[in-house]
This record gives sequence, C-alpha cells and structure tokens, in this order.
Amino acid sequence: MSTCEDSDVRADLKRSVMTRVPPLLTDLYQFSMAYAYWRADRHREPAVFELFFRDNPFGGGFSLFAGLNDCLVFLENFAFSDQDVEYLRSVLPANTDPDFFVYLKELDCSSVSVSAVPEGSVVFARVPLLEVSGPLAVVQLLETSLLCLVNYASLVCSNAARFRLAAGPWRRLIEMGLRRAQGPDGGLTASRYTFIGGFDSTSNTLAGRLFGIPVAGTMAHSYVTSFSSLAEVWPQTLTPVGGGSGIDFISQVKGRLSSVCQLLGSKTELIREGELAAFMSFAIAYPHKFLPVIDSYSVSCGLPCFCAVALALCDLKYQPLGVRLDSGDLCRQSLEVRRVFKECSKQFSVPQFESLIIVGTNSISEQSLAELNRKDNEIDVVGVGTHLVTCTRQPSLGCVYKLIEVRGRPRMKLSEDPEKSTLPGRKSVYRLLDTDGHPQMDLICLSDEPVPTAGVSLNCYPLVSETSLQSITPAQVTSLRLDVFTCGQITYPINSASESREQAQISLQMLHPRHKKLQEPHNYTVAVSERLNSLVSDIRRGNNKGSNFLLSN
Amino acid sequence: MSTCEDSDVRADLKRSVMTRVPPLLTDLYQFSMAYAYWRADRHREPAVFELFFRDNPFGGGFSLFAGLNDCLVFLENFAFSDQDVEYLRSVLPANTDPDFFVYLKELDCSSVSVSAVPEGSVVFARVPLLEVSGPLAVVQLLETSLLCLVNYASLVCSNAARFRLAAGPWRRLIEMGLRRAQGPDGGLTASRYTFIGGFDSTSNTLAGRLFGIPVAGTMAHSYVTSFSSLAEVWPQTLTPVGGGSGIDFISQVKGRLSSVCQLLGSKTELIREGELAAFMSFAIAYPHKFLPVIDSYSVSCGLPCFCAVALALCDLKYQPLGVRLDSGDLCRQSLEVRRVFKECSKQFSVPQFESLIIVGTNSISEQSLAELNRKDNEIDVVGVGTHLVTCTRQPSLGCVYKLIEVRGRPRMKLSEDPEKSTLPGRKSVYRLLDTDGHPQMDLICLSDEPVPTAGVSLNCYPLVSETSLQSITPAQVTSLRLDVFTCGQITYPINSASESREQAQISLQMLHPRHKKLQEPHNYTVAVSERLNSLVSDIRRGNNKGSNFLLSN
Repeated sequence: MSTCEDSDVRADLKRSVMTRVPPLLTDLYQFSMAYAYWRADRHREPAVFELFFRDNPFGGGFSLFAGLNDCLVFLENFAFSDQDVEYLRSVLPANTDPDFFVYLKELDCSSVSVSAVPEGSVVFARVPLLEVSGPLAVVQLLETSLLCLVNYASLVCSNAARFRLAAGPWRRLIEMGLRRAQGPDGGLTASRYTFIGGFDSTSNTLAGRLFGIPVAGTMAHSYVTSFSSLAEVWPQTLTPVGGGSGIDFISQVKGRLSSVCQLLGSKTELIREGELAAFMSFAIAYPHKFLPVIDSYSVSCGLPCFCAVALALCDLKYQPLGVRLDSGDLCRQSLEVRRVFKECSKQFSVPQFESLIIVGTNSISEQSLAELNRKDNEIDVVGVGTHLVTCTRQPSLGCVYKLIEVRGRPRMKLSEDPEKSTLPGRKSVYRLLDTDGHPQMDLICLSDEPVPTAGVSLNCYPLVSETSLQSITPAQVTSLRLDVFTCGQITYPINSASESREQAQISLQMLHPRHKKLQEPHNYTVAVSERLNSLVSDIRRGNNKGSNFLLSN
Repeated sequence: MSTCEDSDVRADLKRSVMTRVPPLLTDLYQFSMAYAYWRADRHREPAVFELFFRDNPFGGGFSLFAGLNDCLVFLENFAFSDQDVEYLRSVLPANTDPDFFVYLKELDCSSVSVSAVPEGSVVFARVPLLEVSGPLAVVQLLETSLLCLVNYASLVCSNAARFRLAAGPWRRLIEMGLRRAQGPDGGLTASRYTFIGGFDSTSNTLAGRLFGIPVAGTMAHSYVTSFSSLAEVWPQTLTPVGGGSGIDFISQVKGRLSSVCQLLGSKTELIREGELAAFMSFAIAYPHKFLPVIDSYSVSCGLPCFCAVALALCDLKYQPLGVRLDSGDLCRQSLEVRRVFKECSKQFSVPQFESLIIVGTNSISEQSLAELNRKDNEIDVVGVGTHLVTCTRQPSLGCVYKLIEVRGRPRMKLSEDPEKSTLPGRKSVYRLLDTDGHPQMDLICLSDEPVPTAGVSLNCYPLVSETSLQSITPAQVTSLRLDVFTCGQITYPINSASESREQAQISLQMLHPRHKKLQEPHNYTVAVSERLNSLVSDIRRGNNKGSNFLLSN
C-alpha cells in the first residue's frame, strides 16, 4: 500500500470529514428538553450520562468499541450556526422565551468532559463505555449524535472482527460493501471500522485517501463484457520486463491458448473472443498486476483464457497475480482452478503458477467464511460486501445513553422491562485479569470506591446471571476508561485507523478463546460492586434521597 | 409543521449536503478499468449501463424507487480534485501512463445522459430503473456512487411504505431512527426516504431543516429521572390561557393528584416526587404541548401524575396533548390508559381527556405494527426507529449496474448463477395498465421497437416464471422512464421530499391491493418483448455479433 499524503494532511482531511456532523443532527426532543431545563433554570446543573449497549451483538461473547475519534471531533466542534438557531425558533412553540435562542447561540462543549474506553478495545454488554459530564442541557443535547457515531461504528467493527475470526488469521480479507451501505457516509464508516476490526483492505477509494487504508480491486464483469473482438486490443504489443522491442502479445497469447486448450481438453470453440480480448487488454495495461475475474461467462471458458494470457506474461518475464471467482460454488471451483494452475506449472515449466492467488467474492457471510475452514478449497483472498457492511444478522447494536447523576445525586431509570433499567451513579470500571493475563471480569464500582487490589479477594454481584454474591481474586487490575475530553479539549490522541486496528488486535489477543467462539461463547462476567448493588436496591425500594416517593418525604 | 426557510434556501441547503458525495467515493477497480480502457483507447467509446435490482425486498410484491435526486446532483458535480488525482497516482501502478491523470483531471459528466423512473415510483424487480449512457470510462466510473445513492434510499423508502401499509392510513407514523442508522449521513438518508415512503414526520432535526420534513418529539426518560424533588420546579406559577395573574401550579397539581388517586384507587405513596416534578416543569415550559413519557418508573405511577398535571392545565384552559408509552405491552397499556382518560373525562368533566393522544414507541417492527390492526389498542401515533432505518428483515436491496451496450452493440453477462445474467441492449420500459387503471405488467422492449398500442394484443415473455409466450392487451400504455440528465445538465425537476412523497402515494394508490399484500403478494409480471427474448437467445447461443466465440468468427 502507498499513499501520497503524510499523516498530518490525512488527519486534517479526516477531521474535515468528521466535522460534517452538525449539532442539529439530533432528535427534536433534545431541544424540547433543553428548553424545559433552561426554563426551570436547571440547564447549568452538573449532570452525567453514560453510554452502553445491553447485549453483545450477533449472539457473540464480546464487542469492539469504535467511533470514539468521531465523537471527540464532534464535541470539539459543537456549536450552532445562526441558521440552525433560526430553524429551531421555527419549530419550537411560538411562546418559547427568545432568550433561550441567545443561550443556544453561545453553547459549546467547553464545560463538558468525557472518559471513555479506548477506540478498538474489546468490550462487553452493560459496561459504561463513555461517561459524559457537564451542564445538564448540553450533555442532554449530545445524546443522539454520540449514539449515532458509536452505534454503527462499534457494530460493524465487531462484525469485521467476527469475519476475521471466521476466516482465520492468514486469509486476506477485502471490504467491498460501499454500494450496499446506508449512503455515502455509511460506506465510509463501514470501510474505516471494518479495517479496524481486522480487514486488510477496502475497495473504497475515498476511505483509502482519508484514512490511509490499503485499497484493492481489479475488474468487474462489465470490463469483460465490454469487449467483443481481438481488434479492440490496443496496443497489441508488450515490452518484456528486461526491456527490448515490443512483442506481438496477441500472437503470443494465441500460441499459448492452443497449448492450454490441448492440455485441459477444452474446446477452443467455447473460448469467447471478447473475454480473451478483455484479458489481453488488461494484461497490457497491468502486466505486473494481472488478476481478472474469470466467470463473466463461465469458469470453463474464462480459465483457459486466463492461463493463456498469464503464460504469455510469464514468457515476457512478468508475474501474473491470479484470478477472481464471483459466482457458483467457490470452494469447488477454487480446487479446480488450483488443479489447472498446477498442471500448467508442470506442463509449461512455470513454477510461479503454483503461487497464483485465488480471490473469492460472492455474497460472503460469516457462515460461508467459516465454511471455508471446514471444506477443502484454495481461496487465498476473500472480498466481502453486503453481509459485512449491513450486518445482516443484527443490523443495530442498540447503544443507549442514560442519565446517571444530577447535582451529585445518583439517578436511575426503572422500567416495565427490567433490562431497560439503568445503573445509577458515577462509576469506575475495572478489568480484572487472571494469572494468564486473560480478562476474567469487568467490575463496575461507584467512582468513590477504592481501586480493587491485585491478589486481594473482593465480593461482587454479576449482572445478568442470578445476581448472587460472588467472590473473586484478580491477578491484575486495569482501569478500563481514560479521560479523553476535558473541558472542551481533546486529551487523547486521535488515532489513525491503523493504530486503532492494532489496539483491536492486541485487545482481541488478550481475550480467552472461550469468549471469542462465534457460536455459543462462554459468558464473560460483568459485575457490580457491593456498594453499587446496595445503591440499586435502595433506589428500587425508594430509600435513596435521589428517588423520593412523593409522600414518604 | 413550520419552517423558517423558503424552498429556494432549502434547495440550496439540500444541494450543499448532496454535493458532499465526492467522485473518489467509489471502488478502486473502477479506476483500474478506466485506465485499461484509456490505455486501449476505448475510453471514449459510447457505452450504456443500466441499474436494477433482482428481487423485491422484504418478500414483498413491489418496491419504491428513490435516490434519483441525489444521483442527479452527484452527476452534475462530478469532477476530480487535484488531491484526488494525486491520491490515485499513488495507488495505481508506478508505470501507469502519466497522461491518464491529465485525462482524469478534465473529466466531467458533460457527455453523460440518463433516463430514469421518477423518484417515488412503484417499481419491480429486474426492471431497468436508470439508464446511463456516455463515454465508456466515465459511465464505468459512476457505478459504485450511483449504486450507493440508490440502494439504501430505495430500500428504506420501500420499508417505510410497508410500515405505512401495516399501520393503516390513519395512524400517524414518526421516524426516530437516527441513533441506530449507519452514521450521520445514513441517518439523514433514512429520515428523508422514510418520509417519502409514507411516514408523517421525523425526530431528526437536521432532516427537518434540510428537507422540510415535519419534526416531532417531546421528552426522554432522562428528563424524568433528572428530577428528584418539587423544589426543582421553576417557575412555580403558570398564567392561565386567558391571561391574568399566575396560578401556583404546584398547589393546583397537588389538589388534582389527590382526586385522581382517589378516583383510580392509586396509592399516593407510590407517586414519585421526581416524576411529578418533571411533568409539572415540562407543562410549565410547554403548556400547549404537554405530552410526557409516562413509564420511566412504571405506568401505574406515571399515569396518575400525568392526569393530575393535565387536569391542572385544563383548569387553566390549556389543552394537554397526550402521553407516550415506551415499554411493556403497548396494546394492553394503551387500553388501560384510555380507560383512565375516559374516567377522568367523566369524573372531572374534562371532555378534552377523551381525545388525548397515546404515542407508542418500543422496538416497533412491521409485524408489531400489523398486530396493532389485529389486537385491541388505543395507540394513535407510533414512533419507529431501529427496524425501520436498519431494515432488519433485509438490510440491503442489492441493486446492480450492468453494461448493456458498447458502440451500439448489445452486451450481456452470462453467469454460473442464472439469475446473475443480464438483459442486453438499450431498452424502453412500458407500464401496461388494465381497464381499471391498475398496472398489470411492466414490458421491457428494445429501444428501437414500436411503442405498444393500447387495445392491441402483443406477445411477450414473462421473466422469472416459465418464460412461456404470453399474450396481453393493455388498456393503457405509459412509458416508465423519463430523460432526467442530458449531456451534463439536469433536465428533471429536483423534487422536494414532499413532492416525492406525493408521487409515491399516487403510484402506490394505483397499484392493485393484491400486489401490496405484505405477506404472499401476487406476483406482478415483468416481461420482455419477443425481440428482446430473441436477442437473449442469440447471445446465449453465441449467434450474435456482439458475443463471438473465438474460432467461430
């Protein structure tokens, strides 16, 4: 991979994309509430929200957290334009106090602070990933935009990690979902976060330019079908690698084609002139990068054409790259293609045919990728689009953003649906590691509790399960969140996509394989401290100052 | 709905959003092919592509076509920046002819023309929706961007139309999926196209400003849980509608609360002071727009609070709007809420309580909406997020863009997968109507065939089905596509979201109910003319000049 731009330029470019998120891109009710807070003179009250999701996606045992960089750039640039404010004036009730709009015009995030899990970390359901504190009205206004920036980024990044696990570590994965994404920005987001999740490259050229992601891609069927005759091949000569005078490439290929058809027992009557012309023309344009799609008509006619052109390239000392298969039973076809490559290698003494690459691209899903590891096949590189970027199995992560504290008092939402209840109060989150260095539990404590000590037993209440008291002695304790935004300033490096990808790989490597199983993974324990558990019980019973029942007060 | 901007400003704004789609937002292989065409001096050859999808989404009988406006604005602005070209130079092979980059710098769509189905039209699988003609390299480069702009727009618009059909015509539908969309732009696209598909409003404020879509929304649970005491209610007085001195609203509500609890047999000990304070405070800020969410703790405590505050508003001659339910069994709860409203109406002589609105919002899917029509309930307005914008049931439409003609010669892709084959040649598409004015068949002809005549029998071959010859006599014949872009100029009005929505409603109304059934709809016939059918057969057999077999030539 190569790019023409240094990382500074790229960072600028990236910011210029990211700052497109205007603060008006939020739900109207945020403004309705902000006005009600302002009207009650509560808008400056210190408040804290936290962002989390309730279930690991795709029935899996983990997720990857992503979207943080976009959130930080969004927060740094948060300000309403005059036009924004005039629009809000037109949709809020006519009797809204005009001073509220003056207030909106002056708003920014200079009083907001955020702590967060680093981008690309392995995370689990119900762990607060982002804690946002600041004036009540401002942190309320941020809700929808932050959710929008984290939800899909984390989902598609986690999906990519699963595809990577399914594919195994050595098979190369190309993301090519732009045409099936939710519009242009959805496509860019998909390319960025699938790379972070473990893909090797993208077909999305803009993502390559903006994020420095390696780009990949050769030809579509339309290229093949656009040719109908050898007369369209131009120029008709190709200079050998070592230099010298151009060789008549058409004659060279035709000679090779007869031998190939003879070797393979192919009927030359089935060779399509247009397909052969397309391959020749592409080889002349890309003699070092020859990798055509060979099933525009059928593999049985595309493969001999490829072999003939590739052999002609070898004759001129070029190294053809391989082929792409885009339909039918990829496993079966790849075996046949490899067999032919080996036969050619032997017959024509071209050892480089042994290492030709076979790319497979045909509605690849996590399941079909996993199958590649079970069935015999010779596919080296897989291109994935639709199922990856749309996250077919579960197209939404369902992150939520919940109020946990106002004016130093813990707040909690109860609900008719128990899983919609929240955990009150400001918290610290610790990842407890076992003696092998594997994460064994995420522990959510109130922020004023002492940090758990390695080697010392502690009591906690696992969430989800039967909430019975459990005792655990961590071998190591790490704090999961960092201060990333303090009083309007980004205090955390805006990582490049490559850096976040590395963080994801490290974080995934630490996780025990039992939690990474794609089917029926072992549950990872997320627990609350005894004190947090007591606070929840108190609030449920109405015994907490923060949740008075009306007449018991 | 009201907006502060006239439609000109809005059109400008909209264009400024749309023109964000840079031409580099495409797959790398488009550039690989463009260079190979350029190298073979084929880049200026006249070529034609068409865009279609292979199956109606969601197992349905139809789709809505959307995204056209975005395509037109994209085409009009298509040009590479110097930085784009420098980036491409860095990723294409080092031996790429430098003159190719000069060519790229000068590229635009001034030689491109497009005919298309109007935005918001009912369309069917395999009908070419967009025909793009121009220089081979340019129309190839447009592929991914056009697909990206049409795919999700049409999918989510069709999904919205299904939700509308499931909800029935009278129930109001609010789109509120921004936080679950594929990032900011995905969210904007969702808001725009679900409105066109039949939703009434959106929670997405920026979509309101940019597209003139009505916006809606009141409060989240966090607003309720942010309050803990009546001391937080400020101001504590409210002026009656007719004017006069402010009334002590807290006392007014407290008085009403006792009566309500007595009437409902509610225990006042279960009323949460914070929830009551939140409702009061919101009512004071929005006395004309009072519609709180009443299940932040439980409906049994939220409902008496609502009634007390709403009654106090009525005392001051305000008209409360209603309530929102966001968890649990919405049907059952809405019946209970309506029963209470009626009891209050009778007991307290407030007839306006009879017409209070009940809004339901809790992971609404097409199925749960359809259930509302089968089960007793009192839900007037439904807010839909995740399942609408992510299109859970089928998160991708799978539009494709296929080469059909080069230099006047028809082109066709055959395939190992028969459904991946394409229809060759430049075409006209006619919608044949029956005597009741319902569409009965879409007929795809070669463009040089005569227009079918109303009242005259014609023969055709239905696609998909058993391809046996069928005879049909249309009562009316309409041409499905219009010229929308001619030699670089948009020649079709850029419709507002409202105009496209109207087009969608008209087009859907014409469609016979049997094709609109959400489950097991009747198949709508898409057929090809006899001449097109012959061309396909010729090419399959290799008898066509455009698809020579190598040695039969």
